[in-house]
Amino acid sequence: MSVNTNKITFQPIGIIRTPFTSQQGTPCQPAFSGGAEGTIHIYPEFREGLVDLDGFDRIWILFLLDRSKDYKMKVIPYLDTVERGVFATRAPSRPNFIGLSAVRIVGVDESSGTVRVKDVDILDETQIIDIKPYIPENDSYRDSRTGWFEQVRDKGKPADDRFSI
Amino acid sequence: MSVNTNKITFQPIGIIRTPFTSQQGTPCQPAFSGGAEGTIHIYPEFREGLVDLDGFDRIWILFLLDRSKDYKMKVIPYLDTVERGVFATRAPSRPNFIGLSAVRIVGVDESSGTVRVKDVDILDETQIIDIKPYIPENDSYRDSRTGWFEQVRDKGKPADDRFSI
Repeated sequence: MSVNTNKITFQPIGIIRTPFTSQQGTPCQPAFSGGAEGTIHIYPEFREGLVDLDGFDRIWILFLLDRSKDYKMKVIPYLDTVERGVFATRAPSRPNFIGLSAVRIVGVDESSGTVRVKDVDILDETQIIDIKPYIPENDSYRDSRTGWFEQVRDKGKPADDRFSI
Repeated sequence: MSVNTNKITFQPIGIIRTPFTSQQGTPCQPAFSGGAEGTIHIYPEFREGLVDLDGFDRIWILFLLDRSKDYKMKVIPYLDTVERGVFATRAPSRPNFIGLSAVRIVGVDESSGTVRVKDVDILDETQIIDIKPYIPENDSYRDSRTGWFEQVRDKGKPADDRFSI
């Protein structure tokens, strides 16, 4: 990674293979994924970083929302019918196209650089930029209020193509 | 954001001011922050994206770990004494220097582009690259096992300067 005055450059650490080849029909969050499985393939130079990961139930995947259109400051989220500020949504059309998902670990193999995961809501061949362990002390706030999402949280419908190229 | 073959370029959307001016002594996760407060200042062109955020208790902040040294594939985490694979830790010295924290919202003001937050574990003047709403259905997995972290989880000591420039 390099940092200039106002530009930050990242390099993918790997790619994920999943059953979801188009935005339309992809679950819009892990909770709605129906347990879909995927496999992360980490590039050779980063594989040693996977050591000790297999004792964790879940990981955060930070990934590139690389099939999003240009960003907008207001979007109609998948689960809603009203425009919302983009930072109050998980919509992909954000200023920096980074997606964030907590997925379940099925198996880790450092030597081949593969991490099999479950509860995936990520498109096939998406580039991965980071993996972090899920730690409830830092990450789990079960009773957090969720604003506009309160009214629509039971809908659980899959994504459509509104944010696609 | 622009995507070339293997390079991804991001632009900060704002900056955060916090009480923590050096890595040494900064809480190493929000859970250990003792309720420290900070203020995110969003740049003018992104402020409209803050609309609807104030109904949420918490947000994810994605930020630049811009005072980290070069990355390593094995690190000794703040809470441990043994080397671990970097992807099994939240250490800042990662291939892509992106930090992730769930912080509590104290107040949002779209017109001035400020978001006051609590439970902050982020260094002063850190560049912010995304804000996402915290949604328990997607983000809260209270009983997740945490591998090596199980043995050290009660330590809660602050960060030191081992990852600083």
